[in-house]
Amino acid sequence: MPAPKIHIGPEPADHLVQAVEDGGGRVVGLSEAEAIVWAGPETDFPAELPSSVRWVQLQSAGIEPWVERIRAAPEDVQFTSAVGAYASQVAEHALALLLAGVRGIAGYARARTWDRRDDPVLEGSTVAIVGAGGIGRELIRLLEPHDVQILAVTRSGRDDTIPVERLGEVWGKADHFVIAAPATDGTRHLVGADELAQMRPHAWIVNIARGSLIDQDALVEALRSNKIGGAALDVTDPEPLPDDHPLWNEPRALITPHVANPQQTMDRDLAKRVRANVERFAAGEALIAPISRDQGY
Amino acid sequence: MPAPKIHIGPEPADHLVQAVEDGGGRVVGLSEAEAIVWAGPETDFPAELPSSVRWVQLQSAGIEPWVERIRAAPEDVQFTSAVGAYASQVAEHALALLLAGVRGIAGYARARTWDRRDDPVLEGSTVAIVGAGGIGRELIRLLEPHDVQILAVTRSGRDDTIPVERLGEVWGKADHFVIAAPATDGTRHLVGADELAQMRPHAWIVNIARGSLIDQDALVEALRSNKIGGAALDVTDPEPLPDDHPLWNEPRALITPHVANPQQTMDRDLAKRVRANVERFAAGEALIAPISRDQGY
Repeated sequence: MPAPKIHIGPEPADHLVQAVEDGGGRVVGLSEAEAIVWAGPETDFPAELPSSVRWVQLQSAGIEPWVERIRAAPEDVQFTSAVGAYASQVAEHALALLLAGVRGIAGYARARTWDRRDDPVLEGSTVAIVGAGGIGRELIRLLEPHDVQILAVTRSGRDDTIPVERLGEVWGKADHFVIAAPATDGTRHLVGADELAQMRPHAWIVNIARGSLIDQDALVEALRSNKIGGAALDVTDPEPLPDDHPLWNEPRALITPHVANPQQTMDRDLAKRVRANVERFAAGEALIAPISRDQGY
Repeated sequence: MPAPKIHIGPEPADHLVQAVEDGGGRVVGLSEAEAIVWAGPETDFPAELPSSVRWVQLQSAGIEPWVERIRAAPEDVQFTSAVGAYASQVAEHALALLLAGVRGIAGYARARTWDRRDDPVLEGSTVAIVGAGGIGRELIRLLEPHDVQILAVTRSGRDDTIPVERLGEVWGKADHFVIAAPATDGTRHLVGADELAQMRPHAWIVNIARGSLIDQDALVEALRSNKIGGAALDVTDPEPLPDDHPLWNEPRALITPHVANPQQTMDRDLAKRVRANVERFAAGEALIAPISRDQGY
């Protein structure tokens, strides 16, 4: 079996070269590539692919900016995302945000005086995980020892999860919400004014998916009028969130600047995924995280 | 077996009356009491106990302010603390502080602009738990799915823990530290300048025990000179921490005002402990969390 010829773009970063070689591949120029590992923005991606290319590995889990490019590419080119590769880091950050919100840490971090409030605890509460894919499943694992009830919402509704058609039942039932669904046309503003209105007054909503899943204006309104406990957002709409956005000054909002998947572990985790997929490509096996042209993720 | 006569002071709060009765006891005035459930400050505690009293249940886990009173009481009066009763809430808060520190959330909560830093993750790190009693064991349970290495330090060194005599080895070995030891004469300033100097530059130290366990001046100095990653403190020395204390303005410090054990769950958890100990007292069984006169906890 000859080593598959892999192009790494836009630059052949050392950790990716190593990963390709560890996976049994050979790093080549674009013109002779059978596959491309693309660790850069979509705007720099080659407009025309050589006809030898069969597979393109992207570096991110969310692939909204790629959807048109993928649809425009020849049908026999399989794109793969990095879905799942960073799941454990992102789930860890989601738990950190959830605990920081519920236990009042966001507010205390800004205090300059000893002022006790009577915050709730996570123990004994019901947590809805909206979009229980790779990250959601990791989060469920991290929550296991916490004595919380989990309501996991998935597309399929398999394995004791709630199918997305019944998502409407969840908003009034859970104490807290973690949004972990992919961003597609169908999930835009999944959480809007109606959904926020059904939440309990102590509810915290955590978003580690994409900013577009929450109607941010409706969220600001819900926070200002004390309708919910708070919002802990690693993603916003748009990003970066402009300095004059009201969320920056909202006491019930906690914003982290899209750091759930930090650079230092991202390089390591992407390299691991590249190596695994190069091995599978070399062996003619199914690749991890294939992107469906129809569903856009 | 007659119902044991229990006095509840300083006031017979409803949830404690219920707990005493559920445990098989009868609530009585102080003069005829065989036992006292004391849910108030030590300064209001009766200076002289009726000779009928055999047991006093206190409401807190840490009992430093009580040490002299306990030593002065007749030898045949057994005091019990609430050690362990609130462990799950406190451990949850400890994890919340640890994650908030390591993942940079304390800093982001204060930001008013989208400014990414490259924070570490908890996954893959080594966490030392100094004083692995009830709270420490709960925290170990919560950390189980996190893929961290635990270094648990206990007095005995039993069950794969590190005996306190070898505590000195730990400071340079762990990435992060959770202080969960009781406050005694022997644990005052357990973490001082020497210990801080041995920690790694990214190390976060979490204290959910008592403020006196850390030399706070040495800590301020270590934070100011970037010697450690940061400190997340639910307890300080003194409490409340005065408004002009430098920790309030230290970017690497996160302070919560002794809320690891919040009032709303504290009442519930104390009632549970009172009921259990009244049942044991009625049956002549060993009580939960007896206080040793010699060790002061």
